Amino acid sequence: MEIRNEITSLLEIKYPIIQGGMVWVSGWKLASAVSNCGGLGLIGAGSMKPELLKEHLLKCKKNTTNSFGVNIPLLRNDASELINICIAEEVKIIFTSAGHPGKFIDILKKQNIKVIHVVPSVKYGLKAESVGCDAVVGEGVEAGGHNGIDQLTTLSLIPQLVDEVKIPVIAAGGIADGRQIAASFSLGAKGVQIGTLFAATVESSAHDNYKKMIINAKDNDTILAFKKIGLVRMLKNNFADRALVAETEGWNESQLKELLGSKREMKGIFEGDIIEGEMEAGQSSGLVKEILSVRNVFEKLFFEYKNSVSQFNK
Amino acid sequence: MEIRNEITSLLEIKYPIIQGGMVWVSGWKLASAVSNCGGLGLIGAGSMKPELLKEHLLKCKKNTTNSFGVNIPLLRNDASELINICIAEEVKIIFTSAGHPGKFIDILKKQNIKVIHVVPSVKYGLKAESVGCDAVVGEGVEAGGHNGIDQLTTLSLIPQLVDEVKIPVIAAGGIADGRQIAASFSLGAKGVQIGTLFAATVESSAHDNYKKMIINAKDNDTILAFKKIGLVRMLKNNFADRALVAETEGWNESQLKELLGSKREMKGIFEGDIIEGEMEAGQSSGLVKEILSVRNVFEKLFFEYKNSVSQFNK
Repeated sequence: MEIRNEITSLLEIKYPIIQGGMVWVSGWKLASAVSNCGGLGLIGAGSMKPELLKEHLLKCKKNTTNSFGVNIPLLRNDASELINICIAEEVKIIFTSAGHPGKFIDILKKQNIKVIHVVPSVKYGLKAESVGCDAVVGEGVEAGGHNGIDQLTTLSLIPQLVDEVKIPVIAAGGIADGRQIAASFSLGAKGVQIGTLFAATVESSAHDNYKKMIINAKDNDTILAFKKIGLVRMLKNNFADRALVAETEGWNESQLKELLGSKREMKGIFEGDIIEGEMEAGQSSGLVKEILSVRNVFEKLFFEYKNSVSQFNK
Repeated sequence: MEIRNEITSLLEIKYPIIQGGMVWVSGWKLASAVSNCGGLGLIGAGSMKPELLKEHLLKCKKNTTNSFGVNIPLLRNDASELINICIAEEVKIIFTSAGHPGKFIDILKKQNIKVIHVVPSVKYGLKAESVGCDAVVGEGVEAGGHNGIDQLTTLSLIPQLVDEVKIPVIAAGGIADGRQIAASFSLGAKGVQIGTLFAATVESSAHDNYKKMIINAKDNDTILAFKKIGLVRMLKNNFADRALVAETEGWNESQLKELLGSKREMKGIFEGDIIEGEMEAGQSSGLVKEILSVRNVFEKLFFEYKNSVSQFNK
């Protein structure tokens, strides 16, 4: 997979494959493994207190000399604290999501940090570009975890985003196979961000129960719930069933917040509670068949990608 | 766009581009125009009484000597009547949707009619294959009009379907650009079915108000509504807003059916009522910028496709 483009230059990586920053999944172990394979590993700060993020940064730097980055959900009250730690530890790449990057962009650019923002629609892509982001991740509604309210799919979103913004676009949502990397490039993306597939690797810090649920899932084993309080895609389980019923019955925001409670993702993804946990994962779960090492994931992706694009080489 | 594969052989067409059968949109005029360009035109029987279907078949045969087909939604009470007319008029290709093709497959296969079924998930793809369908259309939730309850997206669905069925897979949902045709082939599809883009052509029998709404739509100008009584994607308008509120408030089936009323699609698509009509269209609406002739649509698609796949030809 010999691809040199704006994204490989911007992020100083060998392959334009980015591992999404995921709560309870992507600590230093997963991120450094991905970076060591030539992709971009991201530490998911979303589930980390500032001091824990610092620990992961130190370990990540010890375990890879390649480019890596940090994903910071901007809705965190302590987002600026997380950013200060990244600056202190000389992080060079920050992916921001769930919020407006304009608030922090000046501080980050002053430190020469590359800022890539995750967007669910053209409108937010233009906004990210206008404040000075270096690239955007266009994430379709097939993605696991939190989604945009407009529910644009990756196939629909990417070409529309590519037509409207001048900065490079990275495709995300539903990608777990080299065929989908080829498809993303066909659509005009210059890189891909992959979540669920990496969440189920050996190096992921998620609980085995969660990884097993992913590899056993079929195409239609995820649902989209909690539209009124922040759309989330998760694997079907007892908790997800109750969330669906609540939606069907038209529960209001406070009722839904009570049902959701707190730390559901931790309970599911990290502690492996298959009944009460929120098992965030994408529609690509059906494509993930076994728990592989990160190195084997890269080999699998290259093989599938080459196979797919060979049809255009006649 | 030189592609010869299982789908071009099966349907005896030059290009593996199929125009979706759409209510109030695809009569003989649109279908014959598409077939004359080397794609497969489909007459959408969903909005036709049996005698009207016969009229369209006669006119279509008069206007093209190329392959064309008919789309029949199997939930119609008079589906068998529609099928009998197709048999009498020697239709060679039938696309079935919204129901189980098993009921009619023996009659159709006895007449050597090719049967292609539209499916929203792997489960229904396997079912269609097991009863003897010649191919399946895998349709993602970005598509306009009726959608499957699992809400799989095209990017997620197609590779999973390709892996599970042996018959060829046609990709549908969100496709209005040659880049997305290249993406569909990357995913393993052997053809594409395109709706919204053709709905906004000169030859479409839809009302101009409807075509104008499509070409003015942005990426996020469609919604998915009526989950409890049959998921539909439509353009945002006054009626769509009310449908969304009803959903949020948890209205029950009978309340929703009352809100929907009857002939909403006719009111919107055919009569052009931009306030009260149901304007069925896909997320690809944002990619459709002008009302083109079918011939110009094909030229546009070829150009975009060639441009896209040239990146793999280095």
